[in-house]
Amino acid sequence: MPEIRRPTRYRPVDAMRAPRFTGIGTFMRLPNVTDMDSVDAAFLGIPFDTAVTYRIGGRFAPAAIREASRLLRPYNVEQDVEIFEHVSAVDAGDLAVIPGNVEASYEVIDKGLGPILAAEVVPLAIGGDHSITLAELRAIAKRHGPVGLVDFDSHTDTWDNYWGERYTHGTWCRRAIEEGLIETSRAVQLGIRGSLYGSEDRDGARALGLHLIPTETLLERGVDAVLPEVLTRIGEGPVFVGFDLVEVQPQYDHGEVTSLLAGTLLHEFLTLIALNCRDGSSVR
Amino acid sequence: MPEIRRPTRYRPVDAMRAPRFTGIGTFMRLPNVTDMDSVDAAFLGIPFDTAVTYRIGGRFAPAAIREASRLLRPYNVEQDVEIFEHVSAVDAGDLAVIPGNVEASYEVIDKGLGPILAAEVVPLAIGGDHSITLAELRAIAKRHGPVGLVDFDSHTDTWDNYWGERYTHGTWCRRAIEEGLIETSRAVQLGIRGSLYGSEDRDGARALGLHLIPTETLLERGVDAVLPEVLTRIGEGPVFVGFDLVEVQPQYDHGEVTSLLAGTLLHEFLTLIALNCRDGSSVR
Amino acid sequence: MPEIRRPTRYRPVDAMRAPRFTGIGTFMRLPNVTDMDSVDAAFLGIPFDTAVTYRIGGRFAPAAIREASRLLRPYNVEQDVEIFEHVSAVDAGDLAVIPGNVEASYEVIDKGLGPILAAEVVPLAIGGDHSITLAELRAIAKRHGPVGLVDFDSHTDTWDNYWGERYTHGTWCRRAIEEGLIETSRAVQLGIRGSLYGSEDRDGARALGLHLIPTETLLERGVDAVLPEVLTRIGEGPVFVGFDLVEVQPQYDHGEVTSLLAGTLLHEFLTLIALNCRDGSSVR
Amino acid sequence: MPEIRRPTRYRPVDAMRAPRFTGIGTFMRLPNVTDMDSVDAAFLGIPFDTAVTYRIGGRFAPAAIREASRLLRPYNVEQDVEIFEHVSAVDAGDLAVIPGNVEASYEVIDKGLGPILAAEVVPLAIGGDHSITLAELRAIAKRHGPVGLVDFDSHTDTWDNYWGERYTHGTWCRRAIEEGLIETSRAVQLGIRGSLYGSEDRDGARALGLHLIPTETLLERGVDAVLPEVLTRIGEGPVFVGFDLVEVQPQYDHGEVTSLLAGTLLHEFLTLIALNCRDGSSVR
Amino acid sequence: MPEIRRPTRYRPVDAMRAPRFTGIGTFMRLPNVTDMDSVDAAFLGIPFDTAVTYRIGGRFAPAAIREASRLLRPYNVEQDVEIFEHVSAVDAGDLAVIPGNVEASYEVIDKGLGPILAAEVVPLAIGGDHSITLAELRAIAKRHGPVGLVDFDSHTDTWDNYWGERYTHGTWCRRAIEEGLIETSRAVQLGIRGSLYGSEDRDGARALGLHLIPTETLLERGVDAVLPEVLTRIGEGPVFVGFDLVEVQPQYDHGEVTSLLAGTLLHEFLTLIALNCRDGSSVR
Amino acid sequence: MPEIRRPTRYRPVDAMRAPRFTGIGTFMRLPNVTDMDSVDAAFLGIPFDTAVTYRIGGRFAPAAIREASRLLRPYNVEQDVEIFEHVSAVDAGDLAVIPGNVEASYEVIDKGLGPILAAEVVPLAIGGDHSITLAELRAIAKRHGPVGLVDFDSHTDTWDNYWGERYTHGTWCRRAIEEGLIETSRAVQLGIRGSLYGSEDRDGARALGLHLIPTETLLERGVDAVLPEVLTRIGEGPVFVGFDLVEVQPQYDHGEVTSLLAGTLLHEFLTLIALNCRDGSSVR
Repeated sequence: MPEIRRPTRYRPVDAMRAPRFTGIGTFMRLPNVTDMDSVDAAFLGIPFDTAVTYRIGGRFAPAAIREASRLLRPYNVEQDVEIFEHVSAVDAGDLAVIPGNVEASYEVIDKGLGPILAAEVVPLAIGGDHSITLAELRAIAKRHGPVGLVDFDSHTDTWDNYWGERYTHGTWCRRAIEEGLIETSRAVQLGIRGSLYGSEDRDGARALGLHLIPTETLLERGVDAVLPEVLTRIGEGPVFVGFDLVEVQPQYDHGEVTSLLAGTLLHEFLTLIALNCRDGSSVR
Repeated sequence: MPEIRRPTRYRPVDAMRAPRFTGIGTFMRLPNVTDMDSVDAAFLGIPFDTAVTYRIGGRFAPAAIREASRLLRPYNVEQDVEIFEHVSAVDAGDLAVIPGNVEASYEVIDKGLGPILAAEVVPLAIGGDHSITLAELRAIAKRHGPVGLVDFDSHTDTWDNYWGERYTHGTWCRRAIEEGLIETSRAVQLGIRGSLYGSEDRDGARALGLHLIPTETLLERGVDAVLPEVLTRIGEGPVFVGFDLVEVQPQYDHGEVTSLLAGTLLHEFLTLIALNCRDGSSVR
Repeated sequence: MPEIRRPTRYRPVDAMRAPRFTGIGTFMRLPNVTDMDSVDAAFLGIPFDTAVTYRIGGRFAPAAIREASRLLRPYNVEQDVEIFEHVSAVDAGDLAVIPGNVEASYEVIDKGLGPILAAEVVPLAIGGDHSITLAELRAIAKRHGPVGLVDFDSHTDTWDNYWGERYTHGTWCRRAIEEGLIETSRAVQLGIRGSLYGSEDRDGARALGLHLIPTETLLERGVDAVLPEVLTRIGEGPVFVGFDLVEVQPQYDHGEVTSLLAGTLLHEFLTLIALNCRDGSSVR
Repeated sequence: MPEIRRPTRYRPVDAMRAPRFTGIGTFMRLPNVTDMDSVDAAFLGIPFDTAVTYRIGGRFAPAAIREASRLLRPYNVEQDVEIFEHVSAVDAGDLAVIPGNVEASYEVIDKGLGPILAAEVVPLAIGGDHSITLAELRAIAKRHGPVGLVDFDSHTDTWDNYWGERYTHGTWCRRAIEEGLIETSRAVQLGIRGSLYGSEDRDGARALGLHLIPTETLLERGVDAVLPEVLTRIGEGPVFVGFDLVEVQPQYDHGEVTSLLAGTLLHEFLTLIALNCRDGSSVR
Repeated sequence: MPEIRRPTRYRPVDAMRAPRFTGIGTFMRLPNVTDMDSVDAAFLGIPFDTAVTYRIGGRFAPAAIREASRLLRPYNVEQDVEIFEHVSAVDAGDLAVIPGNVEASYEVIDKGLGPILAAEVVPLAIGGDHSITLAELRAIAKRHGPVGLVDFDSHTDTWDNYWGERYTHGTWCRRAIEEGLIETSRAVQLGIRGSLYGSEDRDGARALGLHLIPTETLLERGVDAVLPEVLTRIGEGPVFVGFDLVEVQPQYDHGEVTSLLAGTLLHEFLTLIALNCRDGSSVR
Repeated sequence: MPEIRRPTRYRPVDAMRAPRFTGIGTFMRLPNVTDMDSVDAAFLGIPFDTAVTYRIGGRFAPAAIREASRLLRPYNVEQDVEIFEHVSAVDAGDLAVIPGNVEASYEVIDKGLGPILAAEVVPLAIGGDHSITLAELRAIAKRHGPVGLVDFDSHTDTWDNYWGERYTHGTWCRRAIEEGLIETSRAVQLGIRGSLYGSEDRDGARALGLHLIPTETLLERGVDAVLPEVLTRIGEGPVFVGFDLVEVQPQYDHGEVTSLLAGTLLHEFLTLIALNCRDGSSVR
């Protein structure tokens, strides 16, 4: 993981010099840079949605999140951090995935993440559908071996296949474990809830070695009580952190609000990096 | 109430055989069946909205709820129930109510519910405006006599009339009590809140013998504390259970979200039936 | 082509008996029937959108068109035809295509169309993206050999591939000609317009033997002048008729309006069939 | 009909003194006046929609049209008329119709129109659904006897009943002729088009003595050619003029655009009055 | 502050006499009155949005709030108050601010508030953007001297300028303190949260003497615990109370929901006045 | 005017290499370049909307048009031009205008246009409200002296002031003539229509020397007949060409459709440039 370089080279356009509705809509109006020199964290769009089984359209998510992110300011009040005093961040653009072709797109993702990971830059990846995580984990494992997992999701995504399709937004986690990309002893899924196809859905995830913390547990015990359990489980070593916006309640599941929320999650991540979180983190 | 028949005859189309966006949009993609043989529960649309005093359009609700219900899966995670292992359920279609004519529509509802109740099938009725409840209660009382009531609503719906109109979404409960359809000693209304026309609105409901549990009580004492009080009050015997989606906060009061919510409430009901709830329940 | 059977067996629910907002939302509230006995025309949903290169979401189109079609009435005023006096029509449901997999879905389409074509029923297919036409033409050619083509579209859909993908909404027509499914001497495309990637886009279509009638020609010469030219070209024999709703101006390209328009096109087709059009027609 | 009084007493707020988005939203920001003294024309809302058989919600139309009408300016460019130099106009508010009760609402309309007609003020009535026209014609006939009719609509509205209901948006015209409110020899309907329930729909209207000019005739012959035919038919004497916004193509059938269109139609009417049109006109 | 006059002269139209969707859309359907005789509280629109740095459009807020307020009823259930038994309230219309010109609009506000304050009527002002508060405070200070402040907002609005502009929605509070309009020892801001430009944003507000209660404090300690601290701080004497709807979570930040919320806040204020709150209150 | 340089240096990302929904959303996915070397035409956002008197929000237009322009392809079919074979074009970003301050923003525009005009690059400017045209014309006049004008608009924008404000979207044209920026003998306005404040609105424009071609003239005589008159009037010499999207019918006046339309107009302009139009053109 990168040692944070100061003074930071890349930061958002200053809103006091140019109103936030002006300028090309990169993430938080960061520079659009693909050379990873002097970069700590890179926003990366992966607009792939072929592997989603119901609500499609995630291909437009990176563009929407960039527009919504104009509202984010550089200081995190609750954490008291001036993010870009500590982090040099850029918008590295989108990967040119191939709509309609999962495996070809996985190769595009692998090639696109390579130079970022090689430069020890933290990628902040935005999908797209959750199937891209498998490709991300493959790229990470090439360099770091299997990693821990903190996955905020309402589903375990450990189905085996849909209609014979083995690479989908609902199967990536099973594939990743089968391919040895995740250290299951260091993996945890938070927020599991909602209706399922059958009881085997949860049981199957547990059989794979995943540790599930359902939403009802979070509500009963409280986040503060659950957090130490999560930290103990993931222990030391690199961890992949992911968010599935299904996690968010469905009433917010569209348009500007979801986009702004996704941007806010990335904002929190940049704060964490600024706080010297040196784990191999990625968000989607 | 029906003894649950196994193996169940009717269940949703399997999402692993046909994606959930395919197929005719019945409720949860259940079979569209009107013969009540081997049926435990029947979804029934009552698209009547003539008796609403402000926001009209509920005639389109059953169609909207059907479309949204494609997202519901057959396993209830929190309750750990495979619903359709225990319940044979169908979509019995809509009643052909007569827009603009309350009393003629009440007769349509009475005739439509008859065969369902006669077959001891639990009707899961979706309005439409709340005025249909009076017709439902009339049909039930013919067979069972007066029943208990659990009504989730923000209003008591015990006004006497609006501009001389005696059958509206705001007067059905007073009419039902006057007609002897509800055992008021076994009736409770939960979630009363919001602005009213005057203090007589609450007082009048109490004078009719209703037991009101306002939203502020639910928030102060908590659902877990209030629930035993409700169960004690309704005691033994058949109960009519209703939801007014006004109960939901108004920010969700439109489009797909409300429809999905209504579907989710029915999903919970199917779960209850699967858990051997043998009361004479109906939802709207 | 079928000899029209009278009296017709299947027709929409009578709006004077049940208001049009009631009932399960099949196309025009026709019976949902899959047995093709005594059927002249069958509405068939093919909710496949994996092969679209930009605006995705066509998987929800059949459901949307069904809801919008509640507004269509059975008499065509301009043509003076009581459609269902002459045509027995049904809604045959959707094909269970496999999102994310073009070739597997093509097989589903082939198998789904087979019994309809075998019964000499006119299929009225609604996509989905334009890529499904290749599968439809394959199924038709198995039975009828190559057919004529009348294609209303703003693009020729004769690109060779997108990013290496050979089966997409922009390549089906080239593939169909390569596979010998279309008699190009009996093929015509009407309404070509808009920006393109390069001049080879039109030239390539002409090199394949297609006859193009651009929008500017339609506007300059008028539909009445162009129509005889089209009829002369297609001559005798079975013809596949298709509509790409891109043809519609983009301001109408979403929501209820597009759905209603698609339904209206099918309404016109049913009228044509009622007028004893005995060509092998299909719409998408 | 009124002799136009000058100088006009009531006119819109001057947009050069208060921006058009300011102020209480009356029609065109005219004074909200119910005393008909020194008034030539009065905007009158009749927010009744109980008698509509499909798309409900017209009760919110007068409010929506008022808001949209902020955009209308007082000079008609094409006619070269400074409207309020010649016409004193007001917004007379809404009639307190009774949702759910057609006949009681008809009495409200009759009582509400009385003083306006008695004062020889031209009412510019905005519905609501088309059923209100029957009540308007009744009120007019009391004072003027039967009148001519120019009705812009896509349907003849001469059905006999819907599900037994005789007073609906589709039956008012038959009822009006039966009640002797319309001089059919001086009546014309323009713009008839679209799908119908059967051929008897048009035939029935003609049997009642109505003169229909379908949309296809308007398109073929042109408005300029058709207009003299209309004027000849209506001849001398008071005429009721009505618009059904179904006339507008359905792609505009919602929200601000429809409201603005309705406002623009009223603007044209005010222009006509300013041009000394002295017929007994009303718009809905 | 006014002594409440009984019986009250002005109250909303009775919903049992005219349905709530009828009538000119004033706030809560109160009389549109500008003479302040026998008035206790006056709704006043200030549709000014020139001084907003990002999301513009607040000029349409007063009109939207008026329409949404049709839903508010006159009895406050939780407080058990029949509001208009105690308060005579009117809708005084909008001020004719000048879009594009902050200082000229400030003068319009000053002149518009004058007669209301002179009559000791409580103004319930709805913006517009938050910059109007400076003008309101100036008008109040002319009569009452500096006042206390209870400001519900997520930002302190104490920036010095934006791009050289000193009068904006983010600077009014600093200007007001500089101009001596606020007694900072009696001022409190509740709900501060979200990302900022830098740590100086909060520090600067505190340096001006403001007392900040961040959202995290409200969540940790609870409203009941914080309230006495607020009351102690503001002590005796007139207080200006303001709400910035940014305070509301952004998912509600548009359309009917926000408007209804704004109306509900005013409803609570009218209740407070009815409860004999005699402080010099104003809402925006 | 520039001599067109070949081979062109800057062109859009190839859609056959990266799907059009990928990548940072510049106009047509052109390079975001501010150095004007080897550039023929530059898209330039001027997101200023302070000077609009009614519908505000144009500050978000450049961002919206960029997103919508992803759909534009590089070949103009009707004109048979491969645009970027002839034109090197870039997206030069937005000018950092100052919301709330017209005159300061005019200076920003003047400084921003300077280097583009100095480099003899054709600016394709997108507002924002129409008031920016005055600043554009000032910048052009500094270099070229007064220019001809072809203005597509429904209003003449020759009002003198609104509420004392002299620089607004409705007054720029009068100011430009007063300041000697337009050669009125070479100026023409097409598409004048709609309601106005009074007859002096048109008369005033003519008194300034403008030549107006109302919409009714365009409809009666046809574009082909009017075009030579326009070309004769503008004659030789540099011309400023502007579009006010009010020109578009109001039903399209929002969201993606308007944005796509604006993009299409720029596409036509790029085509014109490619066709060796060597006039000093600019679009807004």
